[in-house]
Amino acid sequence: MTAKNNQIDALIQVLSKMPGLGPRSARRAVLQIIKKKESYMLPLATLLKEVAKGIKTCTVCGNLDTQSPCHVCQDPKRNPAIICVVEDVSDLWALERTASFKGLYHVLGGTLSAIHGIRPEDLNIGKLVGRAKARETTEIILATNATVDGQTTAHYIVECLKGIAVEITVIAHGVPIGGELDYLDDGTLSAALRERKPF
Amino acid sequence: MTAKNNQIDALIQVLSKMPGLGPRSARRAVLQIIKKKESYMLPLATLLKEVAKGIKTCTVCGNLDTQSPCHVCQDPKRNPAIICVVEDVSDLWALERTASFKGLYHVLGGTLSAIHGIRPEDLNIGKLVGRAKARETTEIILATNATVDGQTTAHYIVECLKGIAVEITVIAHGVPIGGELDYLDDGTLSAALRERKPF
Repeated sequence: MTAKNNQIDALIQVLSKMPGLGPRSARRAVLQIIKKKESYMLPLATLLKEVAKGIKTCTVCGNLDTQSPCHVCQDPKRNPAIICVVEDVSDLWALERTASFKGLYHVLGGTLSAIHGIRPEDLNIGKLVGRAKARETTEIILATNATVDGQTTAHYIVECLKGIAVEITVIAHGVPIGGELDYLDDGTLSAALRERKPF
Repeated sequence: MTAKNNQIDALIQVLSKMPGLGPRSARRAVLQIIKKKESYMLPLATLLKEVAKGIKTCTVCGNLDTQSPCHVCQDPKRNPAIICVVEDVSDLWALERTASFKGLYHVLGGTLSAIHGIRPEDLNIGKLVGRAKARETTEIILATNATVDGQTTAHYIVECLKGIAVEITVIAHGVPIGGELDYLDDGTLSAALRERKPF
């Protein structure tokens, strides 16, 4: 209760559950968007409804889109021989922002995690094996996060893909571009040293 | 462009203009709310639309509500003799949260500001003078912010109310509850010393 109108209170409460907003910023946001109801609130409401009604999970790669197969899987300019395996749709989006990868994706929908009780059958791995077996596929790039769970999942996938005639690669780990050695953690520095290459 | 679907991109763009969210957090938020489309996205869309369509500015005090006069002005348990003048609706909400004021409010809709070109006629001052002249009104509490513009506005209002038989008071400025002297700015400390009172 913030001693206002029930509807406004309800909106603040719902907005405060939006990732990145808390109760205080939701209050501030509601006040500011109420003042722009025609130019902001109503268009936002319409967009939310449209996206919520139209969104689909791509049956091929697991991406979120308003069409299935998604626009990446349907793009004739992309190379279907290379499949990049990511944990989540946000990782797919991050890679797409770089505009440097022209193959297809496969979204796992998480990582194996003993703590969170996520088992191989909870992830989108079966379909990946199927796609790897397809004749056109020549390379699987593992781009799971450089975390313990991400790396465990990568190792598990390598096991699953054993015996399939496909090249398995992993994205490079090392010093990030613009990174200063002094500020990097030991793990990254060791990885960068270990994976050094001729200049 | 984040290399996704047009509708999702549009939603991210609109959400990133929400106060408290930027492009990065809007992206994260959209991904997370898409996964809860039935339980979160559609209810949020409905609420936004309802509030946007129902919101009114109270013709008496300037508060935002779905009814006008607002629920504060209509509440028979509140004391109409005391009117607390605030800059914005957010200040009204903040005071309401304390549940310690039982009078009515008057929302100015901003402060006088030479830099932003806000003149007295841009603020809701005329109506305040009218309310101050009403026979039932006995006290006007000035609760504008403790900023230069807020204090200028307070002084201007005092000028406007000259000659009206009403007591004018101002909320106390001093050390905030829980505040440590060492961390307070000089202005607050001087004010607290200047306005000291018998223990």
